[in-house]
Amino acid sequence: MAVEIKELTSRSENYAQWYNDLVLKADLAENSAVRGCMVIKPYGYAIWEKIQRQLDDMFKETGHVNAYFPLFIPKSFFSKEANHVEGFAKECAVVTHYRLKNDPNGKGVIVDPDAKLEEELIVRPTSETIIWNTYRNWIQSYRDLPILINQWANVVRWEMRTRLFLRTSEFLWQEGHTAHATQEEAMAETRKMLDVYAEFAEKYMAVPVLKGAKTPGERFAGALDTYCIEALMQDGKALQAGTSHFLGQNFAKAFDVQFLNKEGKREYVWSTSWGVSTRLMGALIMAHSDDNGLVLPPKLAPFQVVIVPIYKNDEQLAQIDAKVAGIVAGLKDLGVSVKYDNSQNKKPGWKFAEYELKGVPVRLAMGMRDLENNTIEAARRDTLTKETVSVENIAVYVKNLLEDIQRNIYRKAFDFRAEQTITVDSYDEFKEKIEVGGFILAHWDGTSETEERIKEETKATIRCIPFEGEKTPGKCMVTGKPSAQRVVFARAY
Amino acid sequence: MAVEIKELTSRSENYAQWYNDLVLKADLAENSAVRGCMVIKPYGYAIWEKIQRQLDDMFKETGHVNAYFPLFIPKSFFSKEANHVEGFAKECAVVTHYRLKNDPNGKGVIVDPDAKLEEELIVRPTSETIIWNTYRNWIQSYRDLPILINQWANVVRWEMRTRLFLRTSEFLWQEGHTAHATQEEAMAETRKMLDVYAEFAEKYMAVPVLKGAKTPGERFAGALDTYCIEALMQDGKALQAGTSHFLGQNFAKAFDVQFLNKEGKREYVWSTSWGVSTRLMGALIMAHSDDNGLVLPPKLAPFQVVIVPIYKNDEQLAQIDAKVAGIVAGLKDLGVSVKYDNSQNKKPGWKFAEYELKGVPVRLAMGMRDLENNTIEAARRDTLTKETVSVENIAVYVKNLLEDIQRNIYRKAFDFRAEQTITVDSYDEFKEKIEVGGFILAHWDGTSETEERIKEETKATIRCIPFEGEKTPGKCMVTGKPSAQRVVFARAY
Repeated sequence: MAVEIKELTSRSENYAQWYNDLVLKADLAENSAVRGCMVIKPYGYAIWEKIQRQLDDMFKETGHVNAYFPLFIPKSFFSKEANHVEGFAKECAVVTHYRLKNDPNGKGVIVDPDAKLEEELIVRPTSETIIWNTYRNWIQSYRDLPILINQWANVVRWEMRTRLFLRTSEFLWQEGHTAHATQEEAMAETRKMLDVYAEFAEKYMAVPVLKGAKTPGERFAGALDTYCIEALMQDGKALQAGTSHFLGQNFAKAFDVQFLNKEGKREYVWSTSWGVSTRLMGALIMAHSDDNGLVLPPKLAPFQVVIVPIYKNDEQLAQIDAKVAGIVAGLKDLGVSVKYDNSQNKKPGWKFAEYELKGVPVRLAMGMRDLENNTIEAARRDTLTKETVSVENIAVYVKNLLEDIQRNIYRKAFDFRAEQTITVDSYDEFKEKIEVGGFILAHWDGTSETEERIKEETKATIRCIPFEGEKTPGKCMVTGKPSAQRVVFARAY
Repeated sequence: MAVEIKELTSRSENYAQWYNDLVLKADLAENSAVRGCMVIKPYGYAIWEKIQRQLDDMFKETGHVNAYFPLFIPKSFFSKEANHVEGFAKECAVVTHYRLKNDPNGKGVIVDPDAKLEEELIVRPTSETIIWNTYRNWIQSYRDLPILINQWANVVRWEMRTRLFLRTSEFLWQEGHTAHATQEEAMAETRKMLDVYAEFAEKYMAVPVLKGAKTPGERFAGALDTYCIEALMQDGKALQAGTSHFLGQNFAKAFDVQFLNKEGKREYVWSTSWGVSTRLMGALIMAHSDDNGLVLPPKLAPFQVVIVPIYKNDEQLAQIDAKVAGIVAGLKDLGVSVKYDNSQNKKPGWKFAEYELKGVPVRLAMGMRDLENNTIEAARRDTLTKETVSVENIAVYVKNLLEDIQRNIYRKAFDFRAEQTITVDSYDEFKEKIEVGGFILAHWDGTSETEERIKEETKATIRCIPFEGEKTPGKCMVTGKPSAQRVVFARAY
């Protein structure tokens, strides 16, 4: 049955190549004719739609609404917040003209020099500036607060080295931008949205994450505090899967957004922003998949079950079709998404390999003997095991199986992370262990000098100052100076 | 009760001003700091989300899947299809640089002259070129066909005069791009998607539409045929609400997309594209709304019912709250979306006016006498009538009322269009009647010269050559030359 139609590099051979092969061969995405921009193919986009729909529901449950702000941002807006400009106004797409014209030499079209913009427009790399410029007109009094808005959008950050989903010049994301009357409320919002992200990652993506704060050096440009969720990939590298920023009054001051508080005094508004992107697709792929292809958690699989008929002639197929129709109806009644692939131009072996590659959680196969015995073969993608089961109650069996797969994938990733998380006390040991990969809990003196030195010498960064777990003080592994708690180091995507 | 918190220009006074006032005051959208780009506010975006969700479901039911293609298109791509370049590569946003740097004179940031792109990138005004360049690698044989892909995206067409939703430089839309093995199949797809649009407009937006073909002069740049749905606004002007294009083999030839047919011969692929945009919001607003504000069809209203308590003190409010909780639960059980507005900082009169302005289809109000009598006041937005009804079976009552409102809004628009559709035989009468507005059915000789002359002299365009209705031949009202059937003229948005 192991029909190798599309060869995949193995993870042990070359993890980066395995990832790239998998994204291409499972039809998730590909590079486009535009440098650094990807095409998200239908199968990949169907997973992204599942991610979007679930997150959107969770945002709405927590009181947020969606809106849409312009793609373009006037160049001058970036200069208004001093840190923000350093972080974002550099590698970006700049619109300078608004018209093309026919080349007078007859060679296609050229940019019309007469159509130069007075002020250049930047394709949004993130929308704090344009949004806070808009909020100025929306906020007069405490009665206008809070504003709890989210936007689903495309953004562009010009990247020199790109990798499908993980780092692309254009990517899709959501960005929440909230406005609050008090610091406490904004801080609570920042934390709440981090918790939403963590819940999504763990319950839906089946990816365990560490929650924590970034060091000052790793904060979002313009934020007073950045919280993050950090996941561990199978190669031992960390991946930042979502961030939530407490922006203080920085953007309110930069764009002069004040409100009259209950006491009738003018105050600057407090704000947060938070986002996840198509990068989550990279995390999802790398966290669970194996050398046979994708492994998708049932909750995010475009279809959870595929049914493949095994037959010799049209008459047999007709009999199986009739039997399967009832199974499909039963599965749909229980809310299970199912595809019956009775296409005649592909052999069962090809189909088995194809759906394995695409990570369909459960595969059901029915042949003539099954038909006689009222049985069906059920194979699970996560363990690659299969068993023959009765068609009676198959829908309930599959539903339970999907729940078990969702739990098992999470547990596997959780156990892997537990194995790959170690505590280290000396810098020598750190340098040795960082080569193996994984999360390293170590003491750090809190200075950016030490952080930079570690990064230069080991390529490891502080992923976060974790919110949970042991919080005992100690001594920095590098300088011996006091440390309030261990922080999490790793090499990262 | 008529608390005029936000004054609206009346339609008879100034229709254009009424529209603009309404979009702003109902919190649907506003102009942004970027010329021609709008901010879609949460209430407006919630309507767009309803539109999106319903259309997306209909696209999927007809076998389509979503994908995502790059925002940017290399300039040279536009030159590949001769007609397309004339239509689209003119007023567009051109990215020429990919980096900013600090101004050496210390004044913010400037475009880095060293970061000039080798080839300029155009922000997509429509995606045929980048998509067909991609399809070339996806299509080898007839087995790879059809490709039935849709994309939800933002696009940019630099516009000099913009109006919220109706004509903006950036807008949101969906664009379907399909690839087929035969001309017949592509033509059937073109027609099928027009029918989907018409069904959506009539059943969900409650806007009756004419289906027909555009004249050659009004076709999409690069299409062999453009079908459209045309709606009539209350000021007697037409609005093109959706288009579906039969592209023949034009883009396949421009991007060299060939396939091996069943006979083993190489052929160019046949294609279609079809789209609707946030312009639909303009049609929705203008088709039904009145001098009191928006009138929304229940199927697209962000919430269908609002409940307002009328009370004198906290004790009374608590009693009403308790009663309303049961009503809300009953409505939700029947799938009705409902908002209970018991906010204390606004008076009932203010709330009544606000929800009237926002077009909420049904308003329920409960005071102390209602509480005693087990009744509630139900007001419908479309007719502005109200009645006091029993709380028993209120959910069923409201559900039926919503269906009635949906039907009534459609019928009203349908009757209006019937009144405003006339048949004219002489050009003199045409010139007179076009001043009144509405659809005019008249004979035309089929030449672009006559079409242009009518446009110049009367500002009327041929909206479509209708598919349905009377098809008797006659003589062109202008030239007296033979005409195969009457076509539909109107002044248009």
